[in-house]
Order: sequence, then C-alpha cells, then structure tokens
Amino acid sequence: MNRPAKHLRAQVVGLGLVGTSIAGALRTRGWHVSGSDLDGNRAKRALQLGALHEIGLDSSPELSFVATPASAVVPVATDLLARSTGAVTDVAGVKAAIVAAIDDPRFVGGHPMAGSEQEGPDGADADLFVGATWVLTPGQRTDPTAFATVQSVIVSLGADVVALAAERHDELVAVISHVPHLTSATLMSLASETELDHTVLMRLAAGGFRDMTRIAAGSAAIWPDICRDNSAAIVPVLDRLIDRLAEVRRIVVETDRASLGHLLEAARDARRNLPPRGQRPRHTTELRVLVPDRPGVLAEVTTLAGEMGVNIEDLEIAHSAEGTRGVLVLVVSSEAADTVIAGLRERGYRVSHGLPAT
Amino acid sequence: MNRPAKHLRAQVVGLGLVGTSIAGALRTRGWHVSGSDLDGNRAKRALQLGALHEIGLDSSPELSFVATPASAVVPVATDLLARSTGAVTDVAGVKAAIVAAIDDPRFVGGHPMAGSEQEGPDGADADLFVGATWVLTPGQRTDPTAFATVQSVIVSLGADVVALAAERHDELVAVISHVPHLTSATLMSLASETELDHTVLMRLAAGGFRDMTRIAAGSAAIWPDICRDNSAAIVPVLDRLIDRLAEVRRIVVETDRASLGHLLEAARDARRNLPPRGQRPRHTTELRVLVPDRPGVLAEVTTLAGEMGVNIEDLEIAHSAEGTRGVLVLVVSSEAADTVIAGLRERGYRVSHGLPAT
Repeated sequence: MNRPAKHLRAQVVGLGLVGTSIAGALRTRGWHVSGSDLDGNRAKRALQLGALHEIGLDSSPELSFVATPASAVVPVATDLLARSTGAVTDVAGVKAAIVAAIDDPRFVGGHPMAGSEQEGPDGADADLFVGATWVLTPGQRTDPTAFATVQSVIVSLGADVVALAAERHDELVAVISHVPHLTSATLMSLASETELDHTVLMRLAAGGFRDMTRIAAGSAAIWPDICRDNSAAIVPVLDRLIDRLAEVRRIVVETDRASLGHLLEAARDARRNLPPRGQRPRHTTELRVLVPDRPGVLAEVTTLAGEMGVNIEDLEIAHSAEGTRGVLVLVVSSEAADTVIAGLRERGYRVSHGLPAT
Repeated sequence: MNRPAKHLRAQVVGLGLVGTSIAGALRTRGWHVSGSDLDGNRAKRALQLGALHEIGLDSSPELSFVATPASAVVPVATDLLARSTGAVTDVAGVKAAIVAAIDDPRFVGGHPMAGSEQEGPDGADADLFVGATWVLTPGQRTDPTAFATVQSVIVSLGADVVALAAERHDELVAVISHVPHLTSATLMSLASETELDHTVLMRLAAGGFRDMTRIAAGSAAIWPDICRDNSAAIVPVLDRLIDRLAEVRRIVVETDRASLGHLLEAARDARRNLPPRGQRPRHTTELRVLVPDRPGVLAEVTTLAGEMGVNIEDLEIAHSAEGTRGVLVLVVSSEAADTVIAGLRERGYRVSHGLPAT
C-alpha cells in the first residue's frame, strides 16, 4: 500500500532543524516541497540547502507540516486549514492543548521523537527520522483519510508511527523526555557551579557524565513552552523523582546494600531491555476491522494499538456503499497481530485476520 | 623521557574488564605481564585472550596493578608490597580510605576514569584508556620514584595523568560520577515502574533518555562499595541535587520562564565547554623545581598542578649529591606552564622555566 510520492505537493511552515529535515526528507522522496519561516534568512538557507523547491505557501498541498515553535502551532495550523486543502500536522512536544484548540477533522497532532543538539536549518538531516518513533494523536473528530495520509508519509520518512491519545502522550513524555531533560540540565549546572575547582572537575568528566548531560547541550529555546504546556504531567513526575532520590539518600546513609542492589539491578535490567530503535517487522499482517461510520472510531482503533506499543505500519479506509459502515484496514507486525485482534474484539469490534501483507 | 618498556615486568591482580584491559595494554607495549584472579576461570580467559604471558604472581615486577573489587584493595596491595619489589597502584573508585590504610611509600593510589557497560575479561580493550583521565593520589609519604614509574606507565597507555589529594578526588567523583550514576538508575527505574503502559513508554525512549540511562546498564556490583566508602561525599551532593530539583519544580509550577531560561542556558554553555577528551598538548615544557628532601613535596607539587586541571605529562627526580635537596622535573603543556610556575612560586618553590620539551 505504499503510495507513489511523485508529483505530490507538501509544505512545511517553520524551517528550524526539524522542519528543514522534514522538507529535505520529503524532497528526496519525490515530493514537491514549499516552505516558509517568519525568519526569511532561515527560509533562504533551507532553499540553498536543497530542502525546498520554493519559498512560500502552497494553496493545494496534500499535506502541510507545522514545525514552528509550540506557541505558534495553533494560529499557524488554523490559518493553513482555512486557506489550503489537505491534511495538516505539527511536531510540537506537548499535544493535549494543541489538539483541543484545533477542532478540525483535517488536523492530526504529531510528535517525532527525534532531534539533535544542533538547531536551525544547517543542522537538518533528511535521515533524522529513520528508526525514530513518531507519535500521532488522533482525536474524536480526526478524519481517517487525513490520518492515513499523515501516517503513510511519516512511515515513508523511515519513522515508526505510534498512535496515542494526546493526554496519554503528554504523561509519557513527561517521564521519558521532559523530566530527564530537566534533570540533565540540573546535574550539569550542579557540577559547573560547584565551589570545587571547575577546571579539574570538568577534566574528570568521563563517558557516563558526558552521556547524562548531552541533551543539556541542546537548544534551551523550546523548554519554557514545554514546561508551561505540560506542567500538569511534569510536576508529579518531578515529585516522584525527588522522593526516589530521598530514598537513595537514605540507602547511602544507612549503607543499605540490599536496597541499593535491588535499585541498580532493576535499572540495569530495564535499560538492557529497552527495545532497539528502528527495527522494522519482517512480516506484517492486514487486519480488517468493520467500523461503524461514527466519529472517534479511528482514534479508538489506532490508539488501542499504540497503548500496546504496536506500530501502525499502514492504514487504509474502505467505505461501504451504504455509507453507514466501513472497513478499516490496519497493517501491523505479524507478531503483534493476535494481541491487537484480541484487544479490538474485547471492545466489540468485528475483526477479520487477513492474509499476511508481507 | 619515554622509558623503553621492553623486558620490564608488570603484574595485574584482579582480571575483570579494567584489569584485563591494563594487562593487554601493557603487553602490547612490550611488557612481560603476569596476572592472577581469585576466579581461576577469569585468569585462564585473560591468558587465552592474550592479555597475559602467564598466570601467577611475579616476585620482582617494576609495577603491580591491583584491579580487584574495592573491598579487596587494602589486603591485596599490602600483601604485594610485602612480597614483591616495585611500585604498587590500584584502580578503585574511592581513594581516601585506601591510601590512609596503605601506609607505604611504594603505593600510589589511582583511578582510571574509563570503563564500559561490559564486565569481565571478555569486555577488555587494550585501548580503553586512550584519551581517558587517570587520577593519581600521591600522599605525604609517596616515594617520587614510585610515582614517576606509575605516571610514565599510565601515560604510555594513552591516558592523561591528573594528580589530586585523595579526599579531593573523592569529593569530585561524587559530583561527576557517583551521584549521576545513582540518578541515571533512579530515572530508569522510575520510567520502568510507571503505572502507565511499560511497552509504549519504552518505545518512546528517544536518544536523550537512552543517553541518560546508558550507565545504568553497567555492572551493579561495584556500587555498594562505592556508596559505603564515599557516603560522606555523596550525601551532600544528593542533598544539593534534591534541593535543585525542588527549585525546578517551583519554576515549572510558577511558569518562571526567566529562571528556567537561566538554568538551561547555563547548563548548555557548561556542557558545550566540557573539555574534549584525550587532546594531547602539541608542545610541552619542562619545569625544574628545586625541592627540599622532605616528605610530601611530591604530593604538594603534583596535586597543585592537578587542582589547576593540568596533566602531568612526565616527571623525573634528580637528587643532588648532598642529599638534602633535589630537583623535580615536571613536564606540562606549554600553555599551562606559566600558570603552574606562578602557583609553585606562590607557595615558595624555586622554579626555573626550562626549554620546551617538545
């Protein structure tokens, strides 16, 4: 079900590192790409770098990416939905407020879990998303066709699509991204502000410390918006982290070897079990889900797979002639197929297990 | 002043990853290397891997490395000092208790700031120390000749030698290694124990989280000893970290953009200014320091350079005929020479600025 990308038109608004990477990745895959940025120099640079065919807005793109700073996503996406055709998606790191504010079936919230310590178009990389996880957050009103367009394009960029409810996404990234980032910056500033001699301290910084503070070298600019938009999820995770560190302090003070061993061994096992990135399934299976033609079905079916950690490899919607029912064809890894089928049947869906897709 | 390594004899007691790496590195540099381990299978494996010439103790080595678990360093080093000639050094991560317990001029405490997530002889790498910082902790009674032997051998393995007082080393590694490690394990276990679905959480773990938790994948075995031996330095650093995270919580709750920006920008600048690893100075300079023949001079001169973050590139001791004074020849990078000279003169030393060494 790979769609030929030739002659299709896309646009990217916001040409920082992520936006320019998307533009470049689309162009290398045969799309016609236009782009714009409030900062004309960035747009010119993205053009020079070959990521764009032209600067400006496209009136009839199949797909528009909003890669502006988070605080501009709602007005920019709303404007694009009013003035152009096709699906619109964004790349902001916090999703619930954005998808609640943009009440349009053609908008699909997105968040590529990839980045870099660089910033600006010069740090762009058309392969930035290969093997990355890219979350989509379909909602009650999301149009299945818009979702399928965004999903297939993102898969063509090399990313794995996981569908999650926006609120769930925000809770998860607080644990896996936002609090770790704030902790990295805190460790770095604690080390650099120590009264002990700074130069020798920095000379002792071995691989472990360098690893832990690498993300602190990234752009500081996006974090005030993230902390504002996701404070409801970040604050409880910070509380849990502080509680845990107080427990670590007790363990150290009391030389509680058993508890320390338990903490470190559990962490070691969990770290070693992190799934490898970017492993595409060798075999996929088509699931045909009979769906009532009512709002929210797409979100329910796709986020159910997402909650199980299952990628959506491909997706197609076939409407029936009568218009009250349709078939949603969902392609997942063959390994995960039975689990997804069981979950869908539990929720009352009629699912037929199609032939292997690959 | 590179010493020819041919025919020189060394031994390594404790053949885990670090011990076997030292053995292999010495052997590739022409040393005759014997080694032993309480676990006979490890010794056989190190022999099989070519890191050793033979299993067993050497009665007349120029240098012995104690690379056992930290709790065995004092008895093993004491035994080696009693039964063999030459200098003895160790690789344990906490130094003050060890150097206080081993009151012998031929013992020089050491700590290579290099490791790996692997463990055991199969993870060994003769290039493990290339570009790493290797701290030595000379004390009041340290024999300058023993120090010079250890120093020159470590430099020949590719590491940079920084001399520090043992207590200062322990304070610094609490900030730069021990508390970051405990934090990494805490973040990993917090993520893995979250009530939210584990599988999808782990799928979202992007590069930043992977970087921050990489050290948590390492061997848990050494940490109970480290936490016991260095609790006096670790606990106050944990307290500072918890205080800082409570301040981060306040910043997030109050959307205090100015304070957040300040924290992240300071951390970013500090991270970007971490000195690159393993840059050997292009030019070095010999400093000739007239030293009284009294205990503690070696430690004072070398740790003064260490406090400034200056490596000791080479070191030689020339005793005068009368025996009450000597000359300590210290080789440092030419860039750092003036600073070191000024520091030494401030402390009353007579220093002559020799010709460039390279």
